[in-house]
Amino acid sequence: MQTKVFLNEKDIPKKWYNIAADLPTPLQPPLGPDGNPVSPDMLAPVFPMNLIEQEVSQKRWIDIPQGVLEILYRWRPSPLHRAHFLEKALGTPARIYYKNESVSPAGSHKPNTAVAQAWYNKEFGIKKLTTETGAGQWGSALAFACGLIGLECKVFMVRISFEQKPMRKVMMQTWGATCIPSPSPETKAGRDVLAAHPDTPGSLGIAISEAVEAAVTDTTGETRYSLGSVLNHVLLHQTIIGQEAKQQLKMFGEKKVDIVIGCAGGGSNFAGISFPFVSDKINGKNIEVIPVEPTSCPTLTKGPFIYDHGDIAKMTPLLPMHSLGHSFVPAPIHSGGLRYHGMAPLVSQCVVEGLMTPMAIPQTECFRAALIFAKTEGLIIAPETSHAVAAVIRKAKEAKEEGKEKVILFNLSGHGLMDLYGYDLFLQNKLVDHELHQDDVNEALAELKDLPKPSLSKTGKW
Amino acid sequence: MQTKVFLNEKDIPKKWYNIAADLPTPLQPPLGPDGNPVSPDMLAPVFPMNLIEQEVSQKRWIDIPQGVLEILYRWRPSPLHRAHFLEKALGTPARIYYKNESVSPAGSHKPNTAVAQAWYNKEFGIKKLTTETGAGQWGSALAFACGLIGLECKVFMVRISFEQKPMRKVMMQTWGATCIPSPSPETKAGRDVLAAHPDTPGSLGIAISEAVEAAVTDTTGETRYSLGSVLNHVLLHQTIIGQEAKQQLKMFGEKKVDIVIGCAGGGSNFAGISFPFVSDKINGKNIEVIPVEPTSCPTLTKGPFIYDHGDIAKMTPLLPMHSLGHSFVPAPIHSGGLRYHGMAPLVSQCVVEGLMTPMAIPQTECFRAALIFAKTEGLIIAPETSHAVAAVIRKAKEAKEEGKEKVILFNLSGHGLMDLYGYDLFLQNKLVDHELHQDDVNEALAELKDLPKPSLSKTGKW
Repeated sequence: MQTKVFLNEKDIPKKWYNIAADLPTPLQPPLGPDGNPVSPDMLAPVFPMNLIEQEVSQKRWIDIPQGVLEILYRWRPSPLHRAHFLEKALGTPARIYYKNESVSPAGSHKPNTAVAQAWYNKEFGIKKLTTETGAGQWGSALAFACGLIGLECKVFMVRISFEQKPMRKVMMQTWGATCIPSPSPETKAGRDVLAAHPDTPGSLGIAISEAVEAAVTDTTGETRYSLGSVLNHVLLHQTIIGQEAKQQLKMFGEKKVDIVIGCAGGGSNFAGISFPFVSDKINGKNIEVIPVEPTSCPTLTKGPFIYDHGDIAKMTPLLPMHSLGHSFVPAPIHSGGLRYHGMAPLVSQCVVEGLMTPMAIPQTECFRAALIFAKTEGLIIAPETSHAVAAVIRKAKEAKEEGKEKVILFNLSGHGLMDLYGYDLFLQNKLVDHELHQDDVNEALAELKDLPKPSLSKTGKW
Repeated sequence: MQTKVFLNEKDIPKKWYNIAADLPTPLQPPLGPDGNPVSPDMLAPVFPMNLIEQEVSQKRWIDIPQGVLEILYRWRPSPLHRAHFLEKALGTPARIYYKNESVSPAGSHKPNTAVAQAWYNKEFGIKKLTTETGAGQWGSALAFACGLIGLECKVFMVRISFEQKPMRKVMMQTWGATCIPSPSPETKAGRDVLAAHPDTPGSLGIAISEAVEAAVTDTTGETRYSLGSVLNHVLLHQTIIGQEAKQQLKMFGEKKVDIVIGCAGGGSNFAGISFPFVSDKINGKNIEVIPVEPTSCPTLTKGPFIYDHGDIAKMTPLLPMHSLGHSFVPAPIHSGGLRYHGMAPLVSQCVVEGLMTPMAIPQTECFRAALIFAKTEGLIIAPETSHAVAAVIRKAKEAKEEGKEKVILFNLSGHGLMDLYGYDLFLQNKLVDHELHQDDVNEALAELKDLPKPSLSKTGKW
């Protein structure tokens, strides 16, 4: 009974897969404040040019530099597991596989892009990176990458998370990064918020504004900003996950995969596992591809495909994406990584094109799934990842009802050892499901009514 | 540049290695209150007979049951890494390898024996296990194993740790275990302590007494006690680590190993990595084998080889071991797993026989080593593990001075993600080294003066 397969280091994918080259309709460009497409030069104060080139690239395959691979080898290729014990507990004829991204030193898939971004910035002569973090997974990953590559790193952490999870800060400091609560007195954006709302718990929107400001106002010109999801180059760096999984499914003797599942917040881990399979789907294979989101932040299932800002302070360009509106504030669920109003443009467009079928699940069903997973497969997963597992369980039960031997693959995006507070509340029966207030969404979307709209797809829809 | 090697599941060791069969002088027996050797029957209320048989076995190789292997496959074989980046930072000609036991779902080597113990108890018809835990690694591991195998599990956690690390309790609960602070009102031992010292922070000695009492007083006869280190069968189950490492060193092209290092508290992770190499040493190979302990709890470097109890309440038999005296209370260092007055009899005897050369290191040097490791190899290691890394760094510097290409292997026994509090203090420069007060040791040892002494070894020493 094979439980998992490794890949040798020499078999690691040597190129990232850029799905932009294969989309049925070209990706819509980001727009500036004037409504015109943003040129690469306009992004230069924020990102190094080598990453901007990746952001706008139409090349299908992009070489992974040797220097990046040498760092990824610390934990990659990651194992692919067969979930025998979960299958048995569910009594399903489905064969369930999971790609275990929790084995990275930071505990999630995030280092796949953190390492690449830090490496390209270093190559470009940058000395320091700034970023924001909510729950802390991304801040930890970038601190890890900068520590190894030799860049300064400053993380603006949403104040309420900073206070609730002090050990995340310690993780980042251990790798040499600085982590401060946001809003902070160090930026104009932070000072403005603090003046108006001294007791604010902070938000990802404020923290993004602070991190971007800190990068673009550094007069040395040696500081840039780094983002952990949403953007094209970030998703690109994660495609190593799905490529490895393809090889490993073959090692298990699987000739096809029926369903690919991942949780989706900004979209990067989901893109990582799914894009190489979406490529097969574009080429005619019959694969169900499911991004899973919380019912309380249902970006793909309830939000329209529109142009919207990536942050509340409107510092980012307008991005073509599914969105609930940048001023929408999701309920305080315990999957901090899924509390984002928008969705990566590449994932959004795949959904619009009919290549993916999103699903929304309430958090108590997700934590129930996480507990089943812990007692069968043994791993305590991140609350975000529990959304993928809940969807897998739904699909495995369907397969049982239909009596079909479906092959299901999902991405185990991270472990939950730094996020046990949510488990604690669930075990104490104190966790509730949050109703989505459609009025709040309508209000947030109403603010966008005068913004440009994405142009029609080839199929004439959107 | 090969960074790590995996082993396929089919290449996992199928037998545990029992070093008792190869010791130059036979292991001294445990003694009862009357000074006579304890018979297997006398242990029956505490452990199931199939584990007692392992405890007293003289067989060199013991088959690992298929049912145990199937659970170990969830994370085993664990990877062996080459520490290229640490080597480079140290400028050493030594080649440094580490066995990464942090990849288990509970985050350490402890599940190697937790799974085996839970499995054998289940086989014997036992329904529930009790145990104690200090820092929480062992309680988490046994909770994990019982959750998967289907046993009830009750963990008595030292009260001060229970309060300082509430998330450890949540981990155990997630796997279905119960975790309560010790001393508790549930046992006579606990009630007695609470009556005399209502504000006691608790201790491992009290928690052991409670866990043993809870097992032996359960009138159903379906409860047993489980220990995470020290005993022969516990060390036996860990030998899979060193056996895997041997195969993996060959895959790296290494023909020999010069130095094997592990931290040593009760001795189990150290035995796991080293015993298969000590076997080679007994057979004539020249290998330096180094157990590393804290200078504030220097069991092997400062404690005599004597008969002593395993717990403060003297509920355990007398064990032949290096000990600082069961009433010695180590300083509150942040490596909870190394704060034990005694040492496994098998490790102790290897030291007496000259097969191992123990080393003691103060905790600030260990945390400095952990920070170097985090910024080179990327992993945040457990404070216990940092002792091994500090010793590796000393040895790698020696190799540099001598200009010798030594091959160094060490056991990375666990990650430190649940133990970041110590890192926090270190980063704030608040961590101190504790002087050992020899008077305290003398006082604790004086209590033992009327106890039997181990008989002479073949070489006429001890």
